[in-house]
Amino acid sequence: MPQFAPLQNDTFLRALLRQPTDYTPVWLMRQAGRYLPEYRASRARAGSFLGLAKSPDFATEVTLQPIDRYPLDASILFSDILTVPDAMGLGLYFEEGEGPKFERTVRTEEDVAALRVPDMASLDYVFKAVTQIRTALNGRVPLIGFSGSPWTLACYMVEGQGSREFHTVKKMLYSRPDLMHRVLQTNADAVAQYLNAQIDAGAQAVMIFDSWGGALADGAYQAFSLQYMQKVVAQLQREKDGVRIPAIVFTKGGGLWLDEMADIGADALGLDWTVNLGRARALVGDRVALQGNLDPAILFAAPDQVRTEVEKALASYGTPSAGHGHVFNLGHGISQFTPPESVTAMVEAVHDFSRRQRAA
Amino acid sequence: MPQFAPLQNDTFLRALLRQPTDYTPVWLMRQAGRYLPEYRASRARAGSFLGLAKSPDFATEVTLQPIDRYPLDASILFSDILTVPDAMGLGLYFEEGEGPKFERTVRTEEDVAALRVPDMASLDYVFKAVTQIRTALNGRVPLIGFSGSPWTLACYMVEGQGSREFHTVKKMLYSRPDLMHRVLQTNADAVAQYLNAQIDAGAQAVMIFDSWGGALADGAYQAFSLQYMQKVVAQLQREKDGVRIPAIVFTKGGGLWLDEMADIGADALGLDWTVNLGRARALVGDRVALQGNLDPAILFAAPDQVRTEVEKALASYGTPSAGHGHVFNLGHGISQFTPPESVTAMVEAVHDFSRRQRAA
Repeated sequence: MPQFAPLQNDTFLRALLRQPTDYTPVWLMRQAGRYLPEYRASRARAGSFLGLAKSPDFATEVTLQPIDRYPLDASILFSDILTVPDAMGLGLYFEEGEGPKFERTVRTEEDVAALRVPDMASLDYVFKAVTQIRTALNGRVPLIGFSGSPWTLACYMVEGQGSREFHTVKKMLYSRPDLMHRVLQTNADAVAQYLNAQIDAGAQAVMIFDSWGGALADGAYQAFSLQYMQKVVAQLQREKDGVRIPAIVFTKGGGLWLDEMADIGADALGLDWTVNLGRARALVGDRVALQGNLDPAILFAAPDQVRTEVEKALASYGTPSAGHGHVFNLGHGISQFTPPESVTAMVEAVHDFSRRQRAA
Repeated sequence: MPQFAPLQNDTFLRALLRQPTDYTPVWLMRQAGRYLPEYRASRARAGSFLGLAKSPDFATEVTLQPIDRYPLDASILFSDILTVPDAMGLGLYFEEGEGPKFERTVRTEEDVAALRVPDMASLDYVFKAVTQIRTALNGRVPLIGFSGSPWTLACYMVEGQGSREFHTVKKMLYSRPDLMHRVLQTNADAVAQYLNAQIDAGAQAVMIFDSWGGALADGAYQAFSLQYMQKVVAQLQREKDGVRIPAIVFTKGGGLWLDEMADIGADALGLDWTVNLGRARALVGDRVALQGNLDPAILFAAPDQVRTEVEKALASYGTPSAGHGHVFNLGHGISQFTPPESVTAMVEAVHDFSRRQRAA
């Protein structure tokens, strides 16, 4: 393992661990993305999204672009949430202008029986990227590693692609819960190994993206998504070289289940924009920190309106007190159509207003 | 006004008004739809969806099909949620296999200034259908009238079609809230007039479908969707010929806002499947009845599994007591791919189990 430079800005990690901070740290989901002209240039050179994500050099280049442009408080590995099922041999691919797809699906008893936790060596390109990015960051801000949640991976593995209604995977869930649980257990073990290897490679926090947990019915969410995120969190190494590695869990559309999510052992919960930050804070108390939750569509408005909405969100959370923590973020990935100057306004507003809150 | 036959089954209306019932009444959103072979035959004869919806004869024919096939406790007008903006002159149309679209959009200051509550005479085909259906029902079950919510209509009017992210309408909301409020006020007045005319024509309950309220951020939902549904409800005639006309409000994805929704004057709230029925009942208390909320995907499972899930939902609500009411439904429209025998299993299970609950 290389020796990494000491961390110069630990505001993000402190907020996740509910320790006092001078201001509210901020980063953006999908911050290395198509709204940045420099990203589009890198992608054109790489030829494709997977060309970027599978090359440690390109992944390092684009991960650092938003860090160079904005005073963000965290960086996140540039990768895809579906690397694990790809390594299981399902054949991840992208067609221009569409979401991710798999060449092979997991639907039958035989498909499920053949499913294995992949050899982590096949994901070495990810771990190399993590080490290279951490080295290139040179201690400026912490690096977040991530994966899709067991349920979200299963949605893509069964459907073969994204879906509006998830008929195929839900039919399996209700008709053959035994098969569904076997897929999810394999996914949970694979995701845990994958995140632990990212931590070994240099990730300083990890995040589990449960993009499709919100499509589940109450009851099914707890049994088929939350339970398996808990199994992941339970297997994570939570300390590396004597430093705590915080884990963030984010279920898009999971606002109704925050109380249960707060008890699975994660350090922080991601929130989408339907959640009231103040109410969520009161609900989770000092069990977890919160991360979120501006509607990405707000970034289409003028800078003054962006600032107003940022201040409303920070005021709704209130001033962090002992045992509470807030990391500012969007409630979903930033849109490719966002004007880059909106992000400038947002990041400045978060830093300025949150410092003033603490001074008041 | 014609004299209608006396109502033989008022279980649905009683449950909405939180009065005791012998069993839990049940109907399905989009119950007259493509999963029924007889519907597909009618649609083939009519030539198109709008051909069905704009003909009182066809609308009557398909509205009664599920009532003839299943022992449902309510019927719902066969129509579209977007008839009002169509009557505003925006030109509703459907392309095969796609959702509704409008020929003209409402985006500029001029577009908004030109917007008017449409002459209800242009919607006469709807009111004729209501009267004809109510007559054909001959008192078997009550007839529900409906409309899209002011916000949901605005989404389609501004975007020109459905959307995943609602960038255009949300940009208007955050950049020009003044324009957005003018559109919504016009929509609220139009929807109120439209529902009142349906009540005059024979509708015995009305439902407001807020399909896209769940896309809004907390705070924006209250200001741009809920407020205008309240304005609709406030203008509704709530009694016709001495009989109470219950109003149901349904925001898909609105589970986090039930407490506020319970106070806008509606008799009942629709729930999607992410909501826990027992918790929702405790939250709203005796302010409103509840309607919902099985995941439509459950109907892809075998009849035994359908029955199990119905029993779990009814057990979660618990036995209705004085001042509480529950109408069983799906949490969203029934899928066109549903096996019709799943509906048989569902309706029988609701009736059987809810009678046993009350007897226990």
